[in-house]
Amino acid sequence: MDTIQNKVAMSLTTLVDGFELYWNDQLIIKHSSTTPFVYVGYGEEDIEMYRGNFDINDYLIERVALRHAQVNQNEDETLLIHLSQFKNGSPVLTLLVKAEEDQAKLEFIEVEEGFNRFWVRIEANKQEKVYGCGEQLSHFNMRGKNFPLWTSEPGVGRNKNTYVTWQADVLDKAGGDYYHTNFPQPTFISSHKYYCHVETTSYADFDFRHETFHELHIWEVPNEIIFEGANTFIELVEKITNRFGRQPELPEWTYNGIWLGIQGGTDVVEQKLEKALSKGIKVGGVWCQDWQGERITSFGKRLMWNWKWNPQLYPNLDEKIKEWKQNGIRFLGYINPYVAVEGDLFTHAEQQGYLALNQNGETYLVDFGEFYCGVVDFTNPEAFEWYKGVIKEHLIDFGLDGWMADFGEYLPTDVVLHNGQSPIQMHNAWPAIWAQVNYEAVQESGKLGDIVYFMRAGYTGVQKYCTLIWAGDQSVDWSLDDGLASVIPAALSSGMVGCGLHHSDIGGYTSLHGNKRSKELLMRWAEMGAFTPVMRTHEGNRPYDCAQFDDDDETLEHLARMTNVYVTLAPYIKSLVALNAETGVPVQRPLFMHYEHDEKAYDIQYQYLFGQDLLVAPVYQEGQQTWDVYLPEDEWIHLWSGEECNGGNVVIHAPLGYPPVFYRKNSEWASLFSTLTEI
Amino acid sequence: MDTIQNKVAMSLTTLVDGFELYWNDQLIIKHSSTTPFVYVGYGEEDIEMYRGNFDINDYLIERVALRHAQVNQNEDETLLIHLSQFKNGSPVLTLLVKAEEDQAKLEFIEVEEGFNRFWVRIEANKQEKVYGCGEQLSHFNMRGKNFPLWTSEPGVGRNKNTYVTWQADVLDKAGGDYYHTNFPQPTFISSHKYYCHVETTSYADFDFRHETFHELHIWEVPNEIIFEGANTFIELVEKITNRFGRQPELPEWTYNGIWLGIQGGTDVVEQKLEKALSKGIKVGGVWCQDWQGERITSFGKRLMWNWKWNPQLYPNLDEKIKEWKQNGIRFLGYINPYVAVEGDLFTHAEQQGYLALNQNGETYLVDFGEFYCGVVDFTNPEAFEWYKGVIKEHLIDFGLDGWMADFGEYLPTDVVLHNGQSPIQMHNAWPAIWAQVNYEAVQESGKLGDIVYFMRAGYTGVQKYCTLIWAGDQSVDWSLDDGLASVIPAALSSGMVGCGLHHSDIGGYTSLHGNKRSKELLMRWAEMGAFTPVMRTHEGNRPYDCAQFDDDDETLEHLARMTNVYVTLAPYIKSLVALNAETGVPVQRPLFMHYEHDEKAYDIQYQYLFGQDLLVAPVYQEGQQTWDVYLPEDEWIHLWSGEECNGGNVVIHAPLGYPPVFYRKNSEWASLFSTLTEI
Repeated sequence: MDTIQNKVAMSLTTLVDGFELYWNDQLIIKHSSTTPFVYVGYGEEDIEMYRGNFDINDYLIERVALRHAQVNQNEDETLLIHLSQFKNGSPVLTLLVKAEEDQAKLEFIEVEEGFNRFWVRIEANKQEKVYGCGEQLSHFNMRGKNFPLWTSEPGVGRNKNTYVTWQADVLDKAGGDYYHTNFPQPTFISSHKYYCHVETTSYADFDFRHETFHELHIWEVPNEIIFEGANTFIELVEKITNRFGRQPELPEWTYNGIWLGIQGGTDVVEQKLEKALSKGIKVGGVWCQDWQGERITSFGKRLMWNWKWNPQLYPNLDEKIKEWKQNGIRFLGYINPYVAVEGDLFTHAEQQGYLALNQNGETYLVDFGEFYCGVVDFTNPEAFEWYKGVIKEHLIDFGLDGWMADFGEYLPTDVVLHNGQSPIQMHNAWPAIWAQVNYEAVQESGKLGDIVYFMRAGYTGVQKYCTLIWAGDQSVDWSLDDGLASVIPAALSSGMVGCGLHHSDIGGYTSLHGNKRSKELLMRWAEMGAFTPVMRTHEGNRPYDCAQFDDDDETLEHLARMTNVYVTLAPYIKSLVALNAETGVPVQRPLFMHYEHDEKAYDIQYQYLFGQDLLVAPVYQEGQQTWDVYLPEDEWIHLWSGEECNGGNVVIHAPLGYPPVFYRKNSEWASLFSTLTEI
Repeated sequence: MDTIQNKVAMSLTTLVDGFELYWNDQLIIKHSSTTPFVYVGYGEEDIEMYRGNFDINDYLIERVALRHAQVNQNEDETLLIHLSQFKNGSPVLTLLVKAEEDQAKLEFIEVEEGFNRFWVRIEANKQEKVYGCGEQLSHFNMRGKNFPLWTSEPGVGRNKNTYVTWQADVLDKAGGDYYHTNFPQPTFISSHKYYCHVETTSYADFDFRHETFHELHIWEVPNEIIFEGANTFIELVEKITNRFGRQPELPEWTYNGIWLGIQGGTDVVEQKLEKALSKGIKVGGVWCQDWQGERITSFGKRLMWNWKWNPQLYPNLDEKIKEWKQNGIRFLGYINPYVAVEGDLFTHAEQQGYLALNQNGETYLVDFGEFYCGVVDFTNPEAFEWYKGVIKEHLIDFGLDGWMADFGEYLPTDVVLHNGQSPIQMHNAWPAIWAQVNYEAVQESGKLGDIVYFMRAGYTGVQKYCTLIWAGDQSVDWSLDDGLASVIPAALSSGMVGCGLHHSDIGGYTSLHGNKRSKELLMRWAEMGAFTPVMRTHEGNRPYDCAQFDDDDETLEHLARMTNVYVTLAPYIKSLVALNAETGVPVQRPLFMHYEHDEKAYDIQYQYLFGQDLLVAPVYQEGQQTWDVYLPEDEWIHLWSGEECNGGNVVIHAPLGYPPVFYRKNSEWASLFSTLTEI
């Protein structure tokens, strides 16, 4: 053991009627006959899906405390524990508890039949904060709320008190709530500098509402629960990514500039690209969702979902891709794990038995909003391989250098899968499997590091298989729960669980129920995007209701400015991305990650550190000329004015084009940052 | 035993590992080790009240099945049952089960400490319907939903899919839901012709969502659960009211005509009354809420809440009351169980220690919407007597012949009461106690039968103490859950639990969030009112946003017509009211009460029988000239045209002034009814 390991240690204590698990001085688990830490029970769930929105109800029939523990210490100092309801009752649960150095593990070895619900209590105190649980869009610090963990549509509005949410609920069951996310994960990080991970894909609900304990609820007895501690949060995310995996670096061409989201065919792309370049916008790629065709629904512009080049909409695309590439501009497309009934991929897959079935043994058709698709059954190894082949042949070989690998959250809970497993268990597993399909296709093509795909859906394991996260479909508005602001906690929380490369649709996506994207929102979002690993615009679901980057000269010039900032920062960003690939320290970080002693830093969710040396406080409200920024104790220099500040709150001039950003005076990158005053 | 008792019988069977309770051939309760019928548990509740709207959450820590039963048959054939979790576990619950003739009873004798949650399962089948649970405004047949039973504001809109409800929720936490009611009661009536009553005032939730059982959840182990069966539904309500009590007959003067709800002072009352009489409106009384003064809040017109004649607003009222009475028109006022801090009643009550206290021993002040009141503590016998005295002195002796005895649902759950009981236990008890205060005041004044007060709040026992129910505060609209229509299931459900005298604010009450009462709504509501025990108008909370009875000649003439119908029907109505007083058979009855074999009748909640001989199908939609009516198999005559119909659906001409009403051709009242064609 070295000195660090001496300082940080998990330790077990045996009690007369139980045991205690400590992380340093912090009690993590305590069991005694009067304070049982495990409850088991039986429930009957009722799950309804409508277009990716789930209505989940559980009729809980039993929930019993396992009060009595028979604790046996093994030779290797692990504890073998039999839990039962009563002193002489039969053991309901047998677990093995290990604590070694900075890690502890609860392995659940045997479970009495008839229980399908499980609760475990983790000790807590009032001051503690908790983070993670995948990508959380409303609350970075999750204390005070419970978080159902089930991959789904995140919702439109995501706040029952907003009119947009109410309309989305009433009209489409689609309003969502604070906890809805494409990317949940049963892993939380405590401000006590440990993480806790539950090894499960079952429905779970992590409840952080109680003052003295967290209660983790899982719809099975999980295989294991893991705790790991560290000296610092930096070390902690390193350990987290040691476990879950890390993203490779982004391709070099990423740093050429923004990825312009354009739809409408080859000519439109060419025209818009030319206009952008002529105005000085730095462009790294064009991202054309509709490269495989489009359809119009009442929701807005949707895609064809047959994953092949559509030469009607994109004539000469095969040649154009090469031409653009020569000019340093890559072409990105789109795919998702479903195939529309109208396409030949569907026909082939159905013939081969690659699609998931319904209870009657027929192809399961999922309603995606006025059109229907089959679900490629990745639990069938042949289907998995076939879909990799689709990606290789129709995307990679065709010349795509990136794509949105969309969806992954819609696995119905009444589907019949090839591997015979319960779809309720597989539902959460699906996003990481979908990521793996993409990963292997790219890897086997030898293109890892030159191709990048970005996903919104996630779960445990996505860290290893997904090259880039995007924050999903925000509303084109200023709302905290579903607008520009929501992207910041999303980046911070997913960074805490090891997805350190994050970005979002510049301008947001969802324009419904009267929501229309303003020019100002688009510009503010672009300002934030310049301080994330990747800048990418989206036209939105209703392009004609949304301000676009090429609407007028002011917008074009503003975007040119922000892409220049991004490109100027590229060496710095590249170093952060490299660090993320190497150690798992995310590119966008919460303030407390570098200012552990600053109590305020733990509750800040709308500012972030972009690497250690830049502090970014995006303007997320309309009509602001100034912005109130909190600076932890340090020597800071305002990026645009060069003004020096120390810690505390400062009100900074922040007109359009000048987002509130500060750099550390002592940064080794200070001279690079200082050049930005002249941009 | 006579023959009827032979035909209808509760019976007990002992099983190897449990018992069965039958109502005739219908299994009501079954316990075996694999199908336990009782669960107990422990929960920690969190109850927030905001202006009578409660946000109730329960953190359920344990819920355990009591699988093992030790059943001992006593000499008197009752069963003494010890329930425990396991075969050799200590008994958690001891109960005595009796079944005799048409009654069965479960008495819970002993309970292990540490449990505060209780669930009992009643056997059910798919076809069964259930009714009752107090006054339910959205669902008469409660099958398929659960019904939390907690007296509260019923909500504005009462349907999460309506914009009014959403606004009320967001702005005032006041939207409510389908189960919110002023008058809950833990009593349900099965279509199998038995009722089940749980003797408790605790929070309860009756869950009728399961196909094979009903689950009754109560926040304590109740004293007893009672079942009683009958040959017919008529017999059944007779038995229900044998248990809970019955209302006295309405005063003779009731039948003189409508009670006009008027506010604004003596002169206004006089003018409006004169106008009404001059237009031929039959008037039985004037009902002046503001007889004790008024205040204006953002909600609308509110009252002073100091229960004494306000001579400033109502000069000469003492004389006027006598004058009106001589002309056959009674004066009705208003009171509720709270006293506003500004009044001398509050000062006196506080000095005497008659008001409930907060946790700090200070007077508990309840927010009623921009003004504050003390809660008269009826658990203090002196306070109870004092408030009776207030009613006697300031209402009865002053000359009031009736009043709205409003509220009763707001007992806060953190109040400190004189009797030391838990306010959570007393909360539901309060409405019946409040009714009792009124009842004793009237009774002790020797005026029972000449004075009538009407209440919206209720609970078990209100049957005995409340002279008339009114349906509470509907929205002034056509909504099913909170408008005109909602009053019909309200009347039917409260009738099933023994409150057979029901009426509503003609025109509704709540005008918020853009809801304004139309003239058509007012007229349709009056048409329905003519076929209820009492006709009474309300100006609404925002009189100037609401159509009023005296707005124009058409409205006045329409109301004159409907009051003439009511007065013409008076002999018939009187006979129904007398029957209700004698046997408990409600005045407004569901169709199945007289047509048991008609399967359709069990799901009809927007039509009713007014006595046995009139079928009323109020027009509850806007802009209708015709109306679709369902008639059970019988010989019916359309009240206005004299047209004869048999059973089935008929579309009837139903312009304003001609509500769809039919009478039985064979009715002994047929000649009276036939006179109405000429009105």
